[in-house]
Amino acid sequence: MRCDVVAVGTELLLGQINDTNSSWIGEQLAAHGIDSLVQVKVGDNLARIVGLLRRTLDDADAVIMCGGLGPTHDDITREAIAEVMGVTLIQDEAVGEAIRQMFESRGRRMPENNLRQAFVPVGATIIPQRRGTAPGLICPVGDKVIYAVPGVPHEMKEMLERAILPDLAARNGDVSVIASRTLRTWGESESGLNERLDPVIAQLDIAGNPTLAFLASGWEGIKVRLTSKAPTAAEAAAIIDPWEAAIREVVGPLVFGLDDDTMESVVLQMLRERGMTLGLAESVTGGLVGARLTGIAGASEVFRGSIVSYATDVKHDVLGVGDGPVVSERAAIEMADGARRVLGADVGLSLTGVAGPAEQDGQPVGTLYVGLSIGGRPTTARLLRLPGQREQMRQISVISALDVLRQALLATAAA
Amino acid sequence: MRCDVVAVGTELLLGQINDTNSSWIGEQLAAHGIDSLVQVKVGDNLARIVGLLRRTLDDADAVIMCGGLGPTHDDITREAIAEVMGVTLIQDEAVGEAIRQMFESRGRRMPENNLRQAFVPVGATIIPQRRGTAPGLICPVGDKVIYAVPGVPHEMKEMLERAILPDLAARNGDVSVIASRTLRTWGESESGLNERLDPVIAQLDIAGNPTLAFLASGWEGIKVRLTSKAPTAAEAAAIIDPWEAAIREVVGPLVFGLDDDTMESVVLQMLRERGMTLGLAESVTGGLVGARLTGIAGASEVFRGSIVSYATDVKHDVLGVGDGPVVSERAAIEMADGARRVLGADVGLSLTGVAGPAEQDGQPVGTLYVGLSIGGRPTTARLLRLPGQREQMRQISVISALDVLRQALLATAAA
Repeated sequence: MRCDVVAVGTELLLGQINDTNSSWIGEQLAAHGIDSLVQVKVGDNLARIVGLLRRTLDDADAVIMCGGLGPTHDDITREAIAEVMGVTLIQDEAVGEAIRQMFESRGRRMPENNLRQAFVPVGATIIPQRRGTAPGLICPVGDKVIYAVPGVPHEMKEMLERAILPDLAARNGDVSVIASRTLRTWGESESGLNERLDPVIAQLDIAGNPTLAFLASGWEGIKVRLTSKAPTAAEAAAIIDPWEAAIREVVGPLVFGLDDDTMESVVLQMLRERGMTLGLAESVTGGLVGARLTGIAGASEVFRGSIVSYATDVKHDVLGVGDGPVVSERAAIEMADGARRVLGADVGLSLTGVAGPAEQDGQPVGTLYVGLSIGGRPTTARLLRLPGQREQMRQISVISALDVLRQALLATAAA
Repeated sequence: MRCDVVAVGTELLLGQINDTNSSWIGEQLAAHGIDSLVQVKVGDNLARIVGLLRRTLDDADAVIMCGGLGPTHDDITREAIAEVMGVTLIQDEAVGEAIRQMFESRGRRMPENNLRQAFVPVGATIIPQRRGTAPGLICPVGDKVIYAVPGVPHEMKEMLERAILPDLAARNGDVSVIASRTLRTWGESESGLNERLDPVIAQLDIAGNPTLAFLASGWEGIKVRLTSKAPTAAEAAAIIDPWEAAIREVVGPLVFGLDDDTMESVVLQMLRERGMTLGLAESVTGGLVGARLTGIAGASEVFRGSIVSYATDVKHDVLGVGDGPVVSERAAIEMADGARRVLGADVGLSLTGVAGPAEQDGQPVGTLYVGLSIGGRPTTARLLRLPGQREQMRQISVISALDVLRQALLATAAA
């Protein structure tokens, strides 16, 4: 089955907004075994949208349209679909009433043009809105179908998962449920993971369900995604369970989380479970580690602060680092101890290295020392050689250093 | 004239990489008065690419293809274009030699498949590479044209500006040069800027050259872009000059930079010119301000460090903040003084506020106090009420605080 994507909006063509919807939809469709072979951006022009929809339906079984469902005169997705279906638009009283009530519940006056969103092509099925005002649409065209969803990403995603993926699966003659689970890994390349998991993959190939895919995600690591099919969600999850266990048996310590976990959310949670607080000493990253950790609500329970010691004498004066090269094992150890002491934390984590453009202290670009100070244990430092120039090297430093901490916490029982 | 865009690569359809090239190209084309009405992503499939190219050339005068020019077997853009042109591919000796030399100069062995990149359709003009290995192509198809550029953004951008935009302008029968200058602003909404610049815009409408466009760029501020046409680049720039001056006369202090300037690069440069160093005390931003500043090479000349005092007693113990609410004018002032003292800097800048999800110290989400301590002047704090939840509020805090510093430095003569 093939489902292409059409993103509507002149602003997408002019670089004012980047279309991130279509590639997200492509990823979901692929996980459900549906091909998405062409994805198009088109402006708010009725004739052009209609022509494009007709062409797309020549080649594909289905098309998902994102955007153009709003209340203003340039939101013409409804009109374009009606023309392709050869029908008129009629006002749906229930949708109109729901829009009216949404405004009322927020204590706001409803501008009349919002009722444009209550018009639907005759013969279309409505996907009720749960987050905004414009409903989605399922519009049959012969034995094919056009889906329309709002361009707002979180509204689009919710409708896709709730209504469109199940409808596509049913059209595909497939009454089963698809479940997927993503193991987030750090510390091994895609080819390296592939090699280590070869025996598991060979068994998976025989089993056929679930399937496994690697997704390289740059400085977010490599994702290993298991996708299964079964009559119910519970059965689909149960099919994945033993395979997740088999993967963890081989590469367990590389797996830092599942699905929406991030390295920073995982490390904060591990510290929380152990009743430990964290203080940082950052040099090469200039504050990035603290910024990432505090991006997560509730970080304040665990995260005490960071001494960003970019200048050498700040390392000396504030953190008590001794003389000598500051990109070194010794400096990393003294920075970690200093962070723990100055910030009154249970754990001190430090980063000192060379992001470029030039080398420093005789160390090449990509050098990173990560220091780790935990009360009652000897303070240690690890040397890592990272790829990339400046921004990439710094981003990889963040996740690498947090992973050093994570590995150490794995060896420490939760409180 | 109409120039559509085709981005090639299965990974773009699967959500493994987001296509940001086509919207950037659309922005450049629009600035040059060229319509880009459809932008398509397609996978690495010869028949599908060929069909799409033919369709696109039915509607458009030109098409820019991004990607599929690399050395591996799934890089088939060259083959697809040759088929549409009805010609064969021949090896270009000069390109082959350039690729060989590039590997040699880096002391690396050249895998043979790299020579695939030296094959060009008969009749195509080569756009020499300056940054990578694969050259770009200008491929006439009747009186229309296909351009091919690598998918690597910085290689694509360089070729577009150097070769493709001038070629499009020439085909457009336009021998004039187009110049644009972007004034980066912070501190006023798009509609507010529009209103204040109304008299200038009225005069511009009469003059007709240059044109003016507003580009809202979220937490990077509002861009005001002037675009002019003239027989030479120097004349095009000269046409813009008085209008830039007219705009600065009205909204001068809101303009923090031009073109590729960022708030952080501008503030670092202003500090450098004044021979001043900077120390930060960050609470709500958790290190983001330091991270942004140190993203710029050479920051170490000016930036000494940051005390990320997330926990209240770090504010007390390290920065010397007194008792009382920490989201307050007084705390911001004491943090700024503390940063200057502890980090041995000429200027101390502090941020304390509420990013959410919950209010704090009786202050609503979006509250930001920015403290500024400069030797020989009274330390001050400013209260800002910012929009957005957590991530957005924090990002807006960064640029807002740096702008407070910039405004103060404007009043201080350069050394």
